[in-house]
Amino acid sequence: MKEDTICAIATAPGGAIGIVRLSGSAVFSIVRRVCRRITETTPARTAIYTPIAVPEWNPEGSVPPLDDALVTLFRAPNSYTGEDCAEISCHGSRYILNKVLELLVQQGARLADPGEFTQRAFLNGKLDLSQAEAVADLIASTNRATHDLAMNQLRGGISSELNRLREQLLRLTSLLELELDFSDHEELEFADRTELLNLAGTIDERVRHLARSFETGQALKNGIPVAIVGKTNVGKSTLLNTLLRDDRAIVSDVHGTTRDSIEDTMDLHGITFRFIDTAGLRETDDVVEQIGIERTYKSIEKVSIVIWLTDERPTRHEIDEMQELTRGKELLVVQNKIDLAQPLCNSKNDLAQPLPSLLFISAKLGRGIEELEEAIFQAAHLPEINSNDIIVTSARHYEALLRAHDSLNRVLDGLHSALPTDLIAEDLRLTLSQLAEITGGAITPQETLNNIFSHFCVGK
Amino acid sequence: MKEDTICAIATAPGGAIGIVRLSGSAVFSIVRRVCRRITETTPARTAIYTPIAVPEWNPEGSVPPLDDALVTLFRAPNSYTGEDCAEISCHGSRYILNKVLELLVQQGARLADPGEFTQRAFLNGKLDLSQAEAVADLIASTNRATHDLAMNQLRGGISSELNRLREQLLRLTSLLELELDFSDHEELEFADRTELLNLAGTIDERVRHLARSFETGQALKNGIPVAIVGKTNVGKSTLLNTLLRDDRAIVSDVHGTTRDSIEDTMDLHGITFRFIDTAGLRETDDVVEQIGIERTYKSIEKVSIVIWLTDERPTRHEIDEMQELTRGKELLVVQNKIDLAQPLCNSKNDLAQPLPSLLFISAKLGRGIEELEEAIFQAAHLPEINSNDIIVTSARHYEALLRAHDSLNRVLDGLHSALPTDLIAEDLRLTLSQLAEITGGAITPQETLNNIFSHFCVGK
Repeated sequence: MKEDTICAIATAPGGAIGIVRLSGSAVFSIVRRVCRRITETTPARTAIYTPIAVPEWNPEGSVPPLDDALVTLFRAPNSYTGEDCAEISCHGSRYILNKVLELLVQQGARLADPGEFTQRAFLNGKLDLSQAEAVADLIASTNRATHDLAMNQLRGGISSELNRLREQLLRLTSLLELELDFSDHEELEFADRTELLNLAGTIDERVRHLARSFETGQALKNGIPVAIVGKTNVGKSTLLNTLLRDDRAIVSDVHGTTRDSIEDTMDLHGITFRFIDTAGLRETDDVVEQIGIERTYKSIEKVSIVIWLTDERPTRHEIDEMQELTRGKELLVVQNKIDLAQPLCNSKNDLAQPLPSLLFISAKLGRGIEELEEAIFQAAHLPEINSNDIIVTSARHYEALLRAHDSLNRVLDGLHSALPTDLIAEDLRLTLSQLAEITGGAITPQETLNNIFSHFCVGK
Repeated sequence: MKEDTICAIATAPGGAIGIVRLSGSAVFSIVRRVCRRITETTPARTAIYTPIAVPEWNPEGSVPPLDDALVTLFRAPNSYTGEDCAEISCHGSRYILNKVLELLVQQGARLADPGEFTQRAFLNGKLDLSQAEAVADLIASTNRATHDLAMNQLRGGISSELNRLREQLLRLTSLLELELDFSDHEELEFADRTELLNLAGTIDERVRHLARSFETGQALKNGIPVAIVGKTNVGKSTLLNTLLRDDRAIVSDVHGTTRDSIEDTMDLHGITFRFIDTAGLRETDDVVEQIGIERTYKSIEKVSIVIWLTDERPTRHEIDEMQELTRGKELLVVQNKIDLAQPLCNSKNDLAQPLPSLLFISAKLGRGIEELEEAIFQAAHLPEINSNDIIVTSARHYEALLRAHDSLNRVLDGLHSALPTDLIAEDLRLTLSQLAEITGGAITPQETLNNIFSHFCVGK
C-alpha cells in the first residue's frame, strides 16, 4: 500500500466516453487537487459530477476546465487493485484524456505500465495469477467459447481445481512422511506404497487430463482453421459470403466497427472457425490440376478442415488427388449450385471409393447452408464442453502441467522402485511448486510477471 | 419520461474497460432483471459490483455470467439525459459489450440512434442546442483551441451571449410597441427612433461580430493550412520532421495510438497547423522553374501560409515568381542549412524589393526552429483569443447569424425610412427566432435535430 500512484486511460481512444483510472496511496489527495467537488468527506463508490482542472483553476475565470466529469473513488481494500483507486469518466476526446493524464502526472501520479493495475491486484491478493491472466483473455474474447473459458478461469475455475490437486499432493506428502517416521519397520513400507501409488496415479491422471485439454483450449482460443478449395466459378466467394453473413450479429453492425476484425471468421455454436487465406487456391484456374503447387500445400497444411467445393461430378483422378492432398484433415465435399444442376450422386456413378462426406448446397439461394455449418462444426471434433470442465488455454499453464507430470512420473517410478523416501518427497515438492506456478501461489519471479503483464493493454 | 428505453456502447471498442449506457423509463427494471445485485433499494450514483446475466441465470450453475461489472444508476432528473439512466462498466471485450446490448434489448431496451442520449438531454432541457452541439465538438477536439471553444460553448458561452442579445431585442420590441401605442402622436416617432436605431445598431454590430468570428472558428476547428515548398534537397522533409517531432506529446506516445491521426499536423500555442500535401511541389526537381504547373497552384491555393525553403540565395526572377505565386498568402522565406552555408543576407545583395519575411534555420540541427514556429504562428494572424470571447465554430450558427443580420438590416432600414411600425416589428420577431434557432429555444424542426444528432457517435 506504499506503492506509487499509477494512472492510465482504460478505454480505447475514440468513444463518447473515456475513462482514466488511478491506483495507489496518493490517489485521493491527487484527485482532490484536480477535481473541485471531491473532498475529504466524499464517500467511496459514489459518482460525483465535477470539473477537472489544474488546482489553481478559478471557476469564475475565462479559462474553461479540462472537462466536467464523473469521478468515483474506491477505498482500499475494496477496489480492483486492493489499493485506493479512482475512475474518472470524461468526454471521450483524446485531447481531454491525454490532458487529464498530464494533469495527474503533474500532481504526482505516473503512467501505468501495461497490465499494472491487474498486476497490483495479483500482488495484493485480489486475484491469483491464473485469474489475472483470465482478465486479458476475457478482454480479448470474441465468442461464447473463449468468453466462457476466460470467465470461468477468472471466477477461479482452474484455481479451485489446482487447490484440490494441491490437497491431494499434501496428503501424499504426509503419507510419505509417515512412512519416513516408520522407516525402521521395513515390513510397513510396501503396504503403504500401494496406497501412495494409487494416490499419485490419480493425481497424475488428472494432471494429464488437464494438459490434454490444452489442444481443445488452443482450438477454441485461436479458432479452428478451415479452407475452401475448388475450381474457379464453383462459387467459393459466394459460399464464403453466405457463411460470413450468417454470422453478422445485428448489434455489431449497428456499432459499425467490428467488420474488419471478424472478416473471414464465423462462429458456430459459439466456436470460431477461421477461413484461412487460400489465395493460392482461389487464384488458380483449376485447383485439382495444379495439385502439388507449393503454396496450395501450405494453405491446406495450416487447416484442420477442408471444404472442397464443386459444381459437377469430380473424376476418379481428381478425388484421389484431393484425398491425397488432404490426408489427415477432415474433407467435406460440397456440391454447389444444386438449383442448377443434377446432384452429384443422384445418378449411378463410378465412385468405387465413397467420398468422405458429401453435401449439396446452393450458396446463392442459401440452401443446405445450415447442414453444411453443422458438418463443419462436427468436423472440428470438439469434445462436449461443460463449463464445469477445466480447459487449459494458456501455454504457460500447459508447460507447468507437463513439468508437473514429469515430476509425478518420477514419484511413481520412485514408489515402484522403492527409491528412498526423501528423494521421492523432493519430487513431490517439485510437483507442488510446478502446479503452484499456475496460480502464482509460490513466490513468482518478476520475469514471469513481466511476461504475463506485458501482454496486457495499458489501463488494465 | 414516457420515452422508450435506449441502450448503446458509449466507449470505443478495444479498451480494458467498456461502458454500456441506458436511458429511459424502464432502465431500472431492466437493469434489476440482469444485474443480480441491483435491487429496488439500490441508491443512485453508487457503483455496485454485480454479475450480469440472463434473469434466469443460476450463480451455482455451470454457465458463467456474461460479466462481473460495475453498475451505477442515475435517477431522473439528475442524469445526463434527465431520464432514469444506468452505466454498466464491463470488461472491454467486444463480445461482452455486444452480448450485454443483446441482453438489454431482450429485456425491452432498444439500440440508441447516434446522439440520441444528447438529443434526449436537449429535449428534457438539460442542454440547449448549442450546448448539445458542443458535446460532439468536445469529443472531436484535438487541441487546446478546439477544446476550449467547445468547452466554453458546452458551459453556455454562446447561450448566455444570445440571451443578452435576446433581451436587447425584446427591449427594442417593447420600445417599438410603445411607439405603436402612441402612433397617433406623430411628433413622438422621431425621437424614439433615434434610440431604437442606436439599439438596433448595437445589436447588429454584435451579431456581425459573432458572424465574423466564424472565420477564426473555422481556422481553429479545421487547422490552419501550411505548405512547405522549395527545390529538392533543400531539406523540406527534414524540416517537416523537425516541426512534427517537436509536437509529439509524451502521453500520446505512451498510448501509442495517436500517431496516424496527428501525422502532418502540429500544434503551436494550442492551435493546429496542417501541412497540406504538396506532393506536386515536393516531387518537382525545381519548383520555381516549374511555376505554372496546375497542381502546384492547386496546392498553394488551399493554404494561407507558404514556407519557401531555400539553401542558397534565390535569384530576382525566382523571388518575383514566388511572390506572384503566393499572392494573398503569407510567405515565409526560410534559408536552411545555416550550419553549412553563408546566410542569405550576410553579404550585400541585389534584392531591390525586400523579401516579405526571412528566417535562417538548420532543420538538421534544430537551430532557428522556435523562431520559425513563432513566425508561422504570427503569420496565421489569429486574433488574441480570450476564452470569454465567443467564437462561432458551427456553420449552422453562422448561417443563423447571417440571416439575423439581414433581418436586422431590414429593421434598421425600416427605422431609417420610417416604415410602419408593425412591419418593423415583424422583422424583429424574425431576428429573434433566427437567433433562437442557435440554442433551439424556439420549437426546433425534427429535420434540424436529425441533421445535428446524426453526426454524433452512437452512445453519446
